[in-house]
Amino acid sequence: MKSRTRRLSPPTRVNGHAANRTLSQKNNHAPARVSLPPAPLSKNNHSDKHAEIFSAALKLFQAKGYHGASMQDLADAMGMQKASLYYYIRSKEELLVRVCERGTGAFTQELYEIVLSDLNAGEKLRRAMECHLVALCEQLDLFTVFLHEQKFLGDTHKKKLRGEGKRHAELLAIILQQGIASGEFRRVNVTVTTLAILGMCNWLYEWYSPDGAFEPRAIASMFSELVLNGLEVKRTKRKVKSKK
Amino acid sequence: MKSRTRRLSPPTRVNGHAANRTLSQKNNHAPARVSLPPAPLSKNNHSDKHAEIFSAALKLFQAKGYHGASMQDLADAMGMQKASLYYYIRSKEELLVRVCERGTGAFTQELYEIVLSDLNAGEKLRRAMECHLVALCEQLDLFTVFLHEQKFLGDTHKKKLRGEGKRHAELLAIILQQGIASGEFRRVNVTVTTLAILGMCNWLYEWYSPDGAFEPRAIASMFSELVLNGLEVKRTKRKVKSKK
Repeated sequence: MKSRTRRLSPPTRVNGHAANRTLSQKNNHAPARVSLPPAPLSKNNHSDKHAEIFSAALKLFQAKGYHGASMQDLADAMGMQKASLYYYIRSKEELLVRVCERGTGAFTQELYEIVLSDLNAGEKLRRAMECHLVALCEQLDLFTVFLHEQKFLGDTHKKKLRGEGKRHAELLAIILQQGIASGEFRRVNVTVTTLAILGMCNWLYEWYSPDGAFEPRAIASMFSELVLNGLEVKRTKRKVKSKK
Repeated sequence: MKSRTRRLSPPTRVNGHAANRTLSQKNNHAPARVSLPPAPLSKNNHSDKHAEIFSAALKLFQAKGYHGASMQDLADAMGMQKASLYYYIRSKEELLVRVCERGTGAFTQELYEIVLSDLNAGEKLRRAMECHLVALCEQLDLFTVFLHEQKFLGDTHKKKLRGEGKRHAELLAIILQQGIASGEFRRVNVTVTTLAILGMCNWLYEWYSPDGAFEPRAIASMFSELVLNGLEVKRTKRKVKSKK
């Protein structure tokens, strides 16, 4: 394995869940340091009209992209005058911000509880991946827009979002560190392995169909089996050594 | 593992590399059927001016998204009149089509040669992942636009692109089938495992930075180690069985 340095540089792009600088920059092979990031934000409550606008915006952003969808398109979809739309929302960006906030907050609370539980690291990782994949599949429109369009947020919102993404990736990394510390997982690079897992899971928004062959939990089970086997300490080699 | 049916449904969205219907729909656990898909298209050659326009369009699409970038923006970036731009290209979509064609064709030829080689399946998969990740990292702008904006192609181009993506995913799936048939890999679901590997690799465009800590080959090595260990047949259990 060649690596220029152990330190990871700041990312060049926004990424809610996974970016170079989201993870602990040292001690990739060190024992678990369970200094948990702050608890996730609670979800916002919206009125019915807000919910309708949100839902219409999701569909539009998904079909045309954030830049391709205009406020006029949204007003048309809602059967409203554009001016009336501004009674409910200040700007198109406000809608994208809401999508991204819900996207980042959707399952961080569950992940938080998984990390704090008494389960072993393997079971924690299995549940974390299931929780991630089930949330993504159940709110496919939300995650499609969130994962696809977040890069178009303004700088202030990007910064806030990066903090939420960092929290999520750190929780996953903590599980990996716990598993390495307890001897359940082999000594992998935590940063790169976290990004590998997030990639497998997030990419689902590109191919998953609710009408497809596999239920979210079945996909989660196959994915986590691949990762957990991939992280397994090679017991056979250990036994050979102990016989010497 | 719960699965509704063995058949995979058509995807609801475009995806150059990975979509439900890109892979063999039957025999996920069957021995390798090395009926190779047709050879990939050769790359187009462009004049210097075409190359400059292509490069400027890549930057624009990356910064503003396909819908957010106008032909006027492109003309401004090139220091040309918009009318002059149309001497070189017919439409904005033509540029996106070229990006996607280069994206799909970038390493399919190499993957084709890997599949045809005499290497064992593990080494084929290791090289296939390296080839994928190195191509992506070395042409990050191209892949960022390709993976991010391809969904906005018109239907005709989407259809053609889907064929290219199918070819790529099928080649990876063939390596997995060969490994299962030879007993190198455990009996995983080939479709889901192919999508897991593609997700890990493609997601790099969201977080990789050329100034970051790890070189593409180092990342490829860690990723393929995770997958190859994940696919390993559990020898220990076999030994236990043979003693009974």
